[in-house]
Amino acid sequence: MAQTANKKQNLLLLYDRPLEPIFVSKEAGKKKSIFDVPSTYLTERYKPIGIDIANRFGEEADERIPVKEIRLPDLGPILDLKRDENFTLFLPKHRTLAGRLIDIFLGMRTVEDFISCAVYARDRVNPLLFNYALSVAILHRPDTRNLDVPSLITTFPEKYVDSKVFTKAREEMTIVSEGSREPIIIPKDYTASDLEHEHRVAYFREDIGLNLHHWHWHLVYPFEAAREVVNKNRRGELFYYMHQQVVARYNIERLCNKLNRVERLIKWREPIPEGYFPKLDSIVASRAWPARVANQRLSNLSRDQDQIHADIDTLERWRDRIYEAIHQGFAQDDRNNRIELTETEGIDILGNIVESSILSPNRDYYGDLHNMGHIFLSFIHDPDHRNLEPAGVMGDSATAMRDPVFYRWHAFVDDMFQEHKATLPRYSVQQLTFDGVTVSDVSVSSQNSTPNVLNTFWQQSDVDLSRGMDFQPRGSVFARFTHLQHQPFRYTVTVDNNGAQRQGTCRIFLAPKFDERGNPWLFRDQKGLFIELDRFVVNLRQGKNTITRNSTESSVTIPFERTFRNLDWDRPADQASLEQFNFCGCGWPQHLLIPKGTTDGYACELFVMISNYQDDRVAQDISGVCNDAMSYCGIKDRLYPDRKSMGFPFDRMPRDGVDTLRKFLTPNMRVQDVQIRFQDRTLRPRAKN
Amino acid sequence: MAQTANKKQNLLLLYDRPLEPIFVSKEAGKKKSIFDVPSTYLTERYKPIGIDIANRFGEEADERIPVKEIRLPDLGPILDLKRDENFTLFLPKHRTLAGRLIDIFLGMRTVEDFISCAVYARDRVNPLLFNYALSVAILHRPDTRNLDVPSLITTFPEKYVDSKVFTKAREEMTIVSEGSREPIIIPKDYTASDLEHEHRVAYFREDIGLNLHHWHWHLVYPFEAAREVVNKNRRGELFYYMHQQVVARYNIERLCNKLNRVERLIKWREPIPEGYFPKLDSIVASRAWPARVANQRLSNLSRDQDQIHADIDTLERWRDRIYEAIHQGFAQDDRNNRIELTETEGIDILGNIVESSILSPNRDYYGDLHNMGHIFLSFIHDPDHRNLEPAGVMGDSATAMRDPVFYRWHAFVDDMFQEHKATLPRYSVQQLTFDGVTVSDVSVSSQNSTPNVLNTFWQQSDVDLSRGMDFQPRGSVFARFTHLQHQPFRYTVTVDNNGAQRQGTCRIFLAPKFDERGNPWLFRDQKGLFIELDRFVVNLRQGKNTITRNSTESSVTIPFERTFRNLDWDRPADQASLEQFNFCGCGWPQHLLIPKGTTDGYACELFVMISNYQDDRVAQDISGVCNDAMSYCGIKDRLYPDRKSMGFPFDRMPRDGVDTLRKFLTPNMRVQDVQIRFQDRTLRPRAKN
Repeated sequence: MAQTANKKQNLLLLYDRPLEPIFVSKEAGKKKSIFDVPSTYLTERYKPIGIDIANRFGEEADERIPVKEIRLPDLGPILDLKRDENFTLFLPKHRTLAGRLIDIFLGMRTVEDFISCAVYARDRVNPLLFNYALSVAILHRPDTRNLDVPSLITTFPEKYVDSKVFTKAREEMTIVSEGSREPIIIPKDYTASDLEHEHRVAYFREDIGLNLHHWHWHLVYPFEAAREVVNKNRRGELFYYMHQQVVARYNIERLCNKLNRVERLIKWREPIPEGYFPKLDSIVASRAWPARVANQRLSNLSRDQDQIHADIDTLERWRDRIYEAIHQGFAQDDRNNRIELTETEGIDILGNIVESSILSPNRDYYGDLHNMGHIFLSFIHDPDHRNLEPAGVMGDSATAMRDPVFYRWHAFVDDMFQEHKATLPRYSVQQLTFDGVTVSDVSVSSQNSTPNVLNTFWQQSDVDLSRGMDFQPRGSVFARFTHLQHQPFRYTVTVDNNGAQRQGTCRIFLAPKFDERGNPWLFRDQKGLFIELDRFVVNLRQGKNTITRNSTESSVTIPFERTFRNLDWDRPADQASLEQFNFCGCGWPQHLLIPKGTTDGYACELFVMISNYQDDRVAQDISGVCNDAMSYCGIKDRLYPDRKSMGFPFDRMPRDGVDTLRKFLTPNMRVQDVQIRFQDRTLRPRAKN
Repeated sequence: MAQTANKKQNLLLLYDRPLEPIFVSKEAGKKKSIFDVPSTYLTERYKPIGIDIANRFGEEADERIPVKEIRLPDLGPILDLKRDENFTLFLPKHRTLAGRLIDIFLGMRTVEDFISCAVYARDRVNPLLFNYALSVAILHRPDTRNLDVPSLITTFPEKYVDSKVFTKAREEMTIVSEGSREPIIIPKDYTASDLEHEHRVAYFREDIGLNLHHWHWHLVYPFEAAREVVNKNRRGELFYYMHQQVVARYNIERLCNKLNRVERLIKWREPIPEGYFPKLDSIVASRAWPARVANQRLSNLSRDQDQIHADIDTLERWRDRIYEAIHQGFAQDDRNNRIELTETEGIDILGNIVESSILSPNRDYYGDLHNMGHIFLSFIHDPDHRNLEPAGVMGDSATAMRDPVFYRWHAFVDDMFQEHKATLPRYSVQQLTFDGVTVSDVSVSSQNSTPNVLNTFWQQSDVDLSRGMDFQPRGSVFARFTHLQHQPFRYTVTVDNNGAQRQGTCRIFLAPKFDERGNPWLFRDQKGLFIELDRFVVNLRQGKNTITRNSTESSVTIPFERTFRNLDWDRPADQASLEQFNFCGCGWPQHLLIPKGTTDGYACELFVMISNYQDDRVAQDISGVCNDAMSYCGIKDRLYPDRKSMGFPFDRMPRDGVDTLRKFLTPNMRVQDVQIRFQDRTLRPRAKN
């Protein structure tokens, strides 16, 4: 058993230094391992010098890993994607190729065969495609799914950090002994200056944790794969809700920075004023990520190589058909049967239609709106491939959130969902109330701080680049980046329970108190800005209850350490938690839980509601299951653990007469004014992880 | 003496691996040398680990080079340009900084002090600026000017080759022993596809030799430096002529590829339809060279960091004032005195005004038109620096000729010069004739080929990248690129001399026979398309003379080997030729002497003229002086060796009644129809140089 576990661990060595050939020693911890690659496995380039290579690289290894010779798979069209091209899941052609490789990996009978097959494929297949397919296969094979797949940033740091880092990292790694290496500082403002107003929220868009979350979300909720992989509980609704919350959070960051809420991208034939210059280098493609300059227009796409031919007209037809379904209250499937967009499940169907996933009831008719928007925007600089340009950052879920236009596109996408939500019955007072339960007081407190003040500041953290620094000497080298952070705080909620002991769901949201003009909100506008901070079950004794909850316990976030987790060979193998680890990489980064605020203190309203857990409860066993970021990520292989519509109670238009938040409240809700106070100071780096 | 020569050679080690710190061993040939750097010379980063470093890097050296401790210079504002920024001579701020460093280097009393000072500066100053200043100082110090400064491509290959090369080169250098390394192939079409019509002439624009020539020309004819450096004989005229010939050559390449002649860039407020995606990476700046997307417009510039604030209005005023000077026939200096634009010297003044160089008689009034055009175009993607973007390829003479807009800009610039030329008296028959000399026959021949056919094809060549591959193991690694080539050929000119023995200047030009529509040219249009192929002095006996001349002897070109010359430590030190070597790097690449032609055979007219050498001759001693590319580059520290106006006899409007080339001819001229026949085959690589 221990030996099996050890063997399967060897799969993780394949993530190390993705461009270095398979016969070069791989490291985990300080241990150097070398695959005993059969000479028939070598690529054409290395076959003629196989003996020389075996001698040179064999000597330095601490361990030799035997590779079983298997009947070699036919990689066929997978090799059509060249090793130095970029790989993007948004392109159907690339998805198909990845799917083939995943099938080959899943088809291997034993772990040993799987390792052998992966060893064979690794130097032949595009490294980005290989790593994606390897991860999906590991996640879905019963015999490997408890492996701890490394975070994408360790293998491909180029997708997350300033390209300037790499030349400096090469200098540190070559010139300086490991013990004396210094972290390479990434300036806080390296993509633009404040002359560009959009840059004021770059700290959010370019946050490494945020982009890791987004990549991870789309890894665990793929829109195309085997049906059993895609068809997760309420995945369409989760697509809506997670992205709705992203836009809401972005809007609050904008308001904190004196920017108006983001405008929907709906004029598809007009120049897009906001440009974006990512300043990332693709090391695999050996090309920079292309910039999107100011005032470019979308064009019809005709890229033979990517097998993408699409017109703006087509996008418009899809949009109009989806709106038609929304306003009719039903969609039509591919046999022209009506599919009602019901009060509770309509949003899930609509999510799959809009995204679109293979669960869309009629992809031929409703098309592929959201995904194709990403594609159109990512090829805006070279729509017909005349310039042989790769996709821009919008073409990759690992990088898309960096670009301001991501939010403009998703504001449009979200608006379609809101249009549907507006057709639903309003929540009645009865539906909102929890009889006999009154929230009588709410406060937040942080150490040594005024009550009801949330404190934010900058923090520096380090991330090790060395596993992604191909063809350089070994040993860690760190990039130091600056990100938003907040002081940990605690909620105290006082609840009066007039009834017997029972359970409630405590729902905590935050929204700005005033609009761009400084005026109080109309509820119908403010409701779209409520961001979820936490959701948890509480036990209510009869009488007065004082509930306390720490900000670090949030159901929205994962801890900082998990966002940036490193491949850790010697991790004590707690199988139960390891098995969930990969899924659990999905989660909003804890350090972005609270918006930046302002130095004067940004006025917000903290909303707390206790709903009746009997109505919310989903009967399932979630023991031993990682669920600490369930609000945006759900729970692996389980039902979404809340029967309410996601975003409840803010997901619908209010009942008649409710034009302010105060009027919306029932006794089981309470609003507390809070301030977010930003201090322009930078906390020293955390210990290296 | 031998020791002095040896010491001075050590300066060349400073070009090796421009980013690797000074204390790392430097290589020349296979010899490893290490500078014994005083600990006070180390940068702040390396001072704390100085002992460790001295031990690690000292061991591997074959030779230790003592570094004299001098009173350290104050680098002051030179350090304002960060090490990882791009450096561009077109920016006045950068020129000023370079000028300061050059002055410091020139001020060192001895070679030993100069070496010490350069050793100190090297790791502190921006590497591009350092290398430029070092080259200029070496070229201008009497005690170092016979050193063989390496070609820019060996130090900064990133400015010349596809960025994809570098990841592959790292793999070869790390994985493969030197003897087994394979060249990295640069695809012929890597920047665009033929969907982009402009790409049809990319082989010309992106030719490495062409771009090296252009960089070299501007290195030996700087527009700003100490007056004695700038004020070279007829340098303004040479600016006009070299660039006029570039545009003419580009136009012929276009016509061969069924493209119309290039359009002048005169609509400065309208979108520029042709984009350009250079696909170069700046390793120093650790950033890609920015792309210029299709349909962008120029904007007013306001880049504080670069100290550039300029409006399109300003460009227009400069343009209009220059046209005013042209049409009035005189410029005005900074005291409002008239400066006549005379028949022979007006063009030289105008060249300095337009470029502009410090020889411009009134830079405040006539401005800096040509240079600022480069600047406006190079910042088109980020005119106010809001996106912290570096300059595009138009901002660097090493890369500018890659971009189609270079030729559109220079077509405009050339048009101003032609406007002046049109005001000059026409050449009379008397001025054109060489009494008693008749050219009775002209032909060209190549081995095994039909007479009067020039044969072109592709050829592959290799260039060693290893000196520019910082932080990689040693040993050559080659990039293999494909360029135009032609079969060597020979001119045979038969001249009847009715007079006594005398000398003539044989002038050979080539132009297309037909225009875009397939019609014969009007002379006034065709004259702008004549490209110079050769110019040389001939001795004419009485009676019939048969003159033969090889294409490799051209006064326009330098040999392939010189274009790509490598730093060659063990070069047999022929002092006389070494002294000229740097200057002689200037010259049109031999492999681009003949335009591409077409597979059917592109119809051209070869024009040969013998003018009277007594009228052309410049009395000076040019023995031992490198002058084999004098047509476009002049001769170092000498007068331009031809008294005729550059471009003679095609530099003016023709006399009345001359509307075709035939009518233009006098007996000492002759035209021969020739064809340029292109074969789409690729010659195997030349031996590595």
